[in-house]
Amino acid sequence: MRPNVQAAKDALAHLDIETSDAAIRAKSRDFFWYSPVLKDRLDHIEADFVVSPKSEAEVIEVLRTCYEHDCPVTTRGAGTGNYGQAMPLAGGCVMHLQRMNAVKKIAPGRVVTEPGVLLKDLDAACKEHSGQEIRMFSSTWATATIGGFIAGGSGGVGSCTWGSLRDLGNIIRLRVVTMEAEPRVVEFRGEELARVSHAYGTNGIITEIEMPLAPAYDWVGMFIETDDFMDAARFAEELANEDGILIKLATVFEAPVAHDYFQRVKPYVSPGSNLVGLMVAPHSMDGFLTFLGRRPEAKLIYRSDDHAWARDPGPVFEYGWNHTTLRALKVDPSITYLQVRYGFPEHLNLIERMRNELSPEVLQHLEVLRENGKVMFAGLSLVKFTSEERLDEIVRLHEEAGAMIFNPHRYTLEEGGRQSVDDRQLAFKREADPKGLLNPGKMIAWDDPDWDYKAMYAYPKMQAAE
Amino acid sequence: MRPNVQAAKDALAHLDIETSDAAIRAKSRDFFWYSPVLKDRLDHIEADFVVSPKSEAEVIEVLRTCYEHDCPVTTRGAGTGNYGQAMPLAGGCVMHLQRMNAVKKIAPGRVVTEPGVLLKDLDAACKEHSGQEIRMFSSTWATATIGGFIAGGSGGVGSCTWGSLRDLGNIIRLRVVTMEAEPRVVEFRGEELARVSHAYGTNGIITEIEMPLAPAYDWVGMFIETDDFMDAARFAEELANEDGILIKLATVFEAPVAHDYFQRVKPYVSPGSNLVGLMVAPHSMDGFLTFLGRRPEAKLIYRSDDHAWARDPGPVFEYGWNHTTLRALKVDPSITYLQVRYGFPEHLNLIERMRNELSPEVLQHLEVLRENGKVMFAGLSLVKFTSEERLDEIVRLHEEAGAMIFNPHRYTLEEGGRQSVDDRQLAFKREADPKGLLNPGKMIAWDDPDWDYKAMYAYPKMQAAE
Ligand SMILES: Cc1cc2nc3c(=O)[nH]c(=O)nc-3n(C[C@H](O)[C@H](O)[C@H](O)COP(=O)(O)OP(=O)(O)OC[C@H]3O[C@@H](n4cnc5c(N)ncnc54)[C@H](O)[C@@H]3O)c2cc1C
Ligand SMILES: Cc1cc2nc3c(=O)[nH]c(=O)nc-3n(C[C@H](O)[C@H](O)[C@H](O)COP(=O)(O)OP(=O)(O)OC[C@H]3O[C@@H](n4cnc5c(N)ncnc54)[C@H](O)[C@@H]3O)c2cc1C
Repeated sequence: MRPNVQAAKDALAHLDIETSDAAIRAKSRDFFWYSPVLKDRLDHIEADFVVSPKSEAEVIEVLRTCYEHDCPVTTRGAGTGNYGQAMPLAGGCVMHLQRMNAVKKIAPGRVVTEPGVLLKDLDAACKEHSGQEIRMFSSTWATATIGGFIAGGSGGVGSCTWGSLRDLGNIIRLRVVTMEAEPRVVEFRGEELARVSHAYGTNGIITEIEMPLAPAYDWVGMFIETDDFMDAARFAEELANEDGILIKLATVFEAPVAHDYFQRVKPYVSPGSNLVGLMVAPHSMDGFLTFLGRRPEAKLIYRSDDHAWARDPGPVFEYGWNHTTLRALKVDPSITYLQVRYGFPEHLNLIERMRNELSPEVLQHLEVLRENGKVMFAGLSLVKFTSEERLDEIVRLHEEAGAMIFNPHRYTLEEGGRQSVDDRQLAFKREADPKGLLNPGKMIAWDDPDWDYKAMYAYPKMQAAE
Repeated sequence: MRPNVQAAKDALAHLDIETSDAAIRAKSRDFFWYSPVLKDRLDHIEADFVVSPKSEAEVIEVLRTCYEHDCPVTTRGAGTGNYGQAMPLAGGCVMHLQRMNAVKKIAPGRVVTEPGVLLKDLDAACKEHSGQEIRMFSSTWATATIGGFIAGGSGGVGSCTWGSLRDLGNIIRLRVVTMEAEPRVVEFRGEELARVSHAYGTNGIITEIEMPLAPAYDWVGMFIETDDFMDAARFAEELANEDGILIKLATVFEAPVAHDYFQRVKPYVSPGSNLVGLMVAPHSMDGFLTFLGRRPEAKLIYRSDDHAWARDPGPVFEYGWNHTTLRALKVDPSITYLQVRYGFPEHLNLIERMRNELSPEVLQHLEVLRENGKVMFAGLSLVKFTSEERLDEIVRLHEEAGAMIFNPHRYTLEEGGRQSVDDRQLAFKREADPKGLLNPGKMIAWDDPDWDYKAMYAYPKMQAAE
């Protein structure tokens, strides 16, 4: 099997094809550079061409043609993924879905949409139609697509109430095109959703999505300050456990994150300020203020519906999830991060322990998450990067303590997840992508079933750096 | 202080006053007869007159006039309470709020209403206006008022998601009229709500209510059958812990409740069938069926949106909460019930233990409830009544095991609750009802601060039985 990329490109010339080198390079890149580890390895990667289909029929044509010519296809939503999910490791075709952005149907509790719509445009359509919005979104709401969120993301703003994308009920239906001599269109629901959601587009292209909706409210964004870090963590947890107070975000930042990295917050805090960022439904504000009144250790320093800050800080969710890392990186390029699971009921103990052992080299940034009905924390800890060895050591310290790590410094599904093969995804890849042309290099189980995970995987067919 | 009831009645003659003896008797009664203990003690109780104010101004007039003549006032919503909450123990005036039923304002996430509207009419107005409904309702939705629910109830259908009425955020604002020489109108929010909510109208009359709303969906009612009781309990708990599956009800019935007491269900079950009753959002049905598919021990026997039952069983929620007792009572008048708290994390162990010790004298009926963010169970156990002594013994067995009992065979706030004075309610009664004329006999702390709860309280000024 020798890719004939030029032949594929020629055969697709009647579609919307990107020709400028600069544009091809830009559309070959995502946010992999968040990770110094990935930056070292992926910076040179580039596709041979970029095509932007406008319909499912055109997606089918791209896949059929590339299959015929053995040309790799890496799908792109908006390229905001930060594990290199959308990097075309073997070159070939980047299939950019920006033009497939129609919202097709909105009903009470559900929306049917094409994959390429931006999360913010999807929400705008649902709000306009009937005061609804998606249950959860990546903090890249303003720039990311719904298809990329489902294929490459895991949860985010709203997960404090609704859990993660992978939880039953958080995706209703996916329509998927396979990469075969004659691509098939299949519809997945229920157990079958796990085949292609969070599969990085390695085993099928999602062309239609049905998602559950929740009511859209004018969420009140807030910042709460505490002197003691564990007070901030407890505040967030206890608030999330108030069943009658509806929230969409509860995020906790260890000092001095707010002071050092949140420029517009800085004038209102000190280096010792720990911060809780919140989104609360307006009709829950009375209940929230009552809750707050019981906790003199917590001080409300900002609320989006009523403040006198000289410069508006923007949406509070753009301080949380992976935006925290982005803000820190902008100020201090040596910052990177880890993703940690602090599971119920040991979450607070684990957090306290990790902080005692590692602060300030590792600064705590926590996101309230629901898992199996319980409030717990996802950590997106900020790490002062020194070397890959030290980073691996920090990972090890967490794992030994019982805090599971999802390593964001790896570009494969397995290494970024639980270090094990997802058999459902692998089985479906065998059916749907027999030539292994979809987003090559991202599923170790496909390339090298006996891989033992002791070292970082290096995709053998990766484009050589010049 | 000698009540001059006739003078009060005469002074109010220009209002809507009930004159027929039969009507007065009917409006002096609630569902106290659920309890054989209360039936023995309250059956003879009757008001002297019934007045139905049409506005807050008329409420004020009734309270001012009755205050002047030392006439007791017991407020009535729809009289569906089942602890004798609305029984006018000292006679006098029953103030019936059925005419104060205007829904005043509906906005995203909230409604402002008068107290006398039926729960079902309130929901109809909110649904019609903007596809919304109240977060939780008593299973007497079709017959009870929102004012009576707040003053006399505690939670119900929806509490599996939103917790109880008492939880922060589940009531936004109450407007209350006091009973003084010149009644005052006060507005309560936040911490102050606890003064009058669930106070049986002993310290103020609620004339306006602001409640949070949730989206209204065409909930799918279902019955699930299992052979093993604990399988049914686990099914309900695990479903409620699925963060992505939106439910409004999860209720569990030990065999042979479904077969013996649910007439329209009977043809489809056997005496050994344990049953789970559910309400699931339509857009969560895919997720739910996936959940169900993982549990071969559970069999879906009815879904409201797709069934071939000869006789429609009606809303599934009318099998749950206190409707279970009602259905059992209709078949077997010797049945009564207890209210039990099976708290997280010991809930399943406690349930199993109580069942081993007491079934079938006590049959388990469980309601999934959220408390402090955790899924647990409220028990509304069906009890085969033999004697008051045995009932007290059963209460004791629960309490010794660590399962708290809210005794529904008592008509006072304290004995139906945690057997302790609510200082906030008592303090507000001192301010708002200095003569002690509001719903007399329901707050022991007012009548007899030194009462020791060893025996059942007997209100000394209760009307003598003829
Ligand atoms: C600052 C920042 C904050 C972030 N916060 C979050 C967060 O809160 N939660 C979170 O989950 N992620 C987060 N991310 C990661 C990422 O932004 C999100 O997952 C985002 O939703 C990805 O969408 P995208 O359109 O950019 O997808 P892309 O990056 O373009 O694609 C992601 C993956 O999905 C595949 N893909 C895209 N579309 C399809 C399709 N239609 N069919 C099949 N495969 C497809 C791609 O091949 C790629 O493997 C963050 C990233 C950054 C940089
Ligand atoms: C079959 C059955 C099922 C039930 N299920 C539930 C359930 O699921 N959950 C639950 O919580 N309860 C339940 N109950 C109890 C009761 O039906 C509810 O609490 C109901 O909401 C009471 O409303 P109501 O209008 O009938 O109030 P009423 O019975 O008329 O009054 C209740 C109490 O509130 C006072 N009151 C009424 N209106 C006002 C006002 N405006 N201001 C001040 N005080 C006032 C009355 O004086 C009385 O003390 C059930 C009862 C039955 C018989």
